[in-house]
Amino acid sequence: MAESLEQLKDRVTAYLATHLANDIDQPTLAASMRYSTMAGGKRLRPTLTLATVEILGGQLDADVMRAATALELLHTYSLIHDDLPAMDNDDLRRGAPTNHRKFGAGMATLAGDGLLTLAFQWVTDNHLPAAVKSRLALELAKAAGPAGMVAGQARDIEGTGQQLSLDQLRYLHRQKTGALLRYAVLAGGIITAQPEKVQRLLAQFGASYGLAFQIYDDLMDVVGTTAQMGKQVGKDAAEHKNTYPGLLGVAGAEEQLHQALHQARDTQTALCRLTGRSFAAYDDFLAYFKL
Amino acid sequence: MAESLEQLKDRVTAYLATHLANDIDQPTLAASMRYSTMAGGKRLRPTLTLATVEILGGQLDADVMRAATALELLHTYSLIHDDLPAMDNDDLRRGAPTNHRKFGAGMATLAGDGLLTLAFQWVTDNHLPAAVKSRLALELAKAAGPAGMVAGQARDIEGTGQQLSLDQLRYLHRQKTGALLRYAVLAGGIITAQPEKVQRLLAQFGASYGLAFQIYDDLMDVVGTTAQMGKQVGKDAAEHKNTYPGLLGVAGAEEQLHQALHQARDTQTALCRLTGRSFAAYDDFLAYFKL
Repeated sequence: MAESLEQLKDRVTAYLATHLANDIDQPTLAASMRYSTMAGGKRLRPTLTLATVEILGGQLDADVMRAATALELLHTYSLIHDDLPAMDNDDLRRGAPTNHRKFGAGMATLAGDGLLTLAFQWVTDNHLPAAVKSRLALELAKAAGPAGMVAGQARDIEGTGQQLSLDQLRYLHRQKTGALLRYAVLAGGIITAQPEKVQRLLAQFGASYGLAFQIYDDLMDVVGTTAQMGKQVGKDAAEHKNTYPGLLGVAGAEEQLHQALHQARDTQTALCRLTGRSFAAYDDFLAYFKL
Repeated sequence: MAESLEQLKDRVTAYLATHLANDIDQPTLAASMRYSTMAGGKRLRPTLTLATVEILGGQLDADVMRAATALELLHTYSLIHDDLPAMDNDDLRRGAPTNHRKFGAGMATLAGDGLLTLAFQWVTDNHLPAAVKSRLALELAKAAGPAGMVAGQARDIEGTGQQLSLDQLRYLHRQKTGALLRYAVLAGGIITAQPEKVQRLLAQFGASYGLAFQIYDDLMDVVGTTAQMGKQVGKDAAEHKNTYPGLLGVAGAEEQLHQALHQARDTQTALCRLTGRSFAAYDDFLAYFKL
């Protein structure tokens, strides 16, 4: 019987709590890296990887846990650097002081650098086959790097205050949020050594899911409450960020969200047909988008 | 006939000039990453890898060039983040404005993040065997990460203004500078698939070389000139940094340098004996330390 999302999330958090400190060799750096990593959150990305491994018949052993949880390290780095005074200059994250407010901007920069680098250690210092490990490192680097997430961040900085077209906005978010969620699902296929065709569909599901995720996040910043989202809402408009509702209105953004979810469900169906396995577990991830 | 250090350095620079832009998908980010990567420098780390590959009979083909040059991306990231206002707050690097002075601290942070991540892409998106690629990614992550270089940086920040013991100072520098130079030499052994015993000696040579490098750098900050070093001297004392001459005086630091060089030469001899190959090319690297 497959584990629920909640169980997978708890396993990721427990793995981090047990193993993170072993790989850090300076006390303040350890405190700073641990502070943001253990600050809560949905653990969405590694949970997507683990659910995909389970769907495809893989075991969630220590090696798979390590390789999958690496993505949470990388995600946490992106939040710490994103919050820095030189970037978004945020004081609060998940209701608590941001890393630099607690440890100073220098240590926060290093904590992010440490988490990013440690992510590549965790995908390669396990006992999965070498071909799997080198492919995970490569796909993670492409998703997170200067043609992926970092490019999206740069595009976001450069585009703030400018009016982007829908195509430009979609492209920005495909890099900024989409690439890592795409990797999260694809990684489950790499770990279980799926054929090329299955890996392509997994990546496609992840990409559609990532698009839906970003549109939903934008929408909630307009129509959601702070309590519901666990973070301050109404920030995007105040900061002249380019968003889906800003560009298309709430109804237009909802329409885009429905399209992305429709694509994700189509791909889910195609994956069932191609592999003969049930991808019903993905329903739990798609249930996240409540309007 | 093996290539000279100068030739290897030029090959690294040419490789960067040709290939860097292909992997960056945002114009300002590309300009910022390129600015620091092409700002000159000795290209010492990839040159150490390439010289080691040549000594051990490997070819410097496109795949080896890519895997070796990745280390220069990583080294450049460390300089950009180190210079940031939140860290050392330097205005000049190699006689030119630092990255954040030219592109702003936000884009400089992203350029560093992009270079760090791209380094892991370059060690894994080539055609070397999967076992070599995953091992390179792992050793690079360990050398650069929160038990290596990033820990050394954190120790440096935390130790500034405090008096460290010689053991503490050596430990700091083993992490901060030594780990990456150790990796540079070891990588040549991984790429050419050397036996464990040879890899251990290569790592040992790199570690001794790295120690000598840091002591020499500290010494030159006291006895060198700005023209000779291509950077401002006398900074360490002004900033109350812990250094070898600060702790041991110039003569004591010179004595430590000679010890480190002696160790490096012993290991060089052991490598010749074990492999039956000439490691004379390492003489050129050791000739760097002129007092």
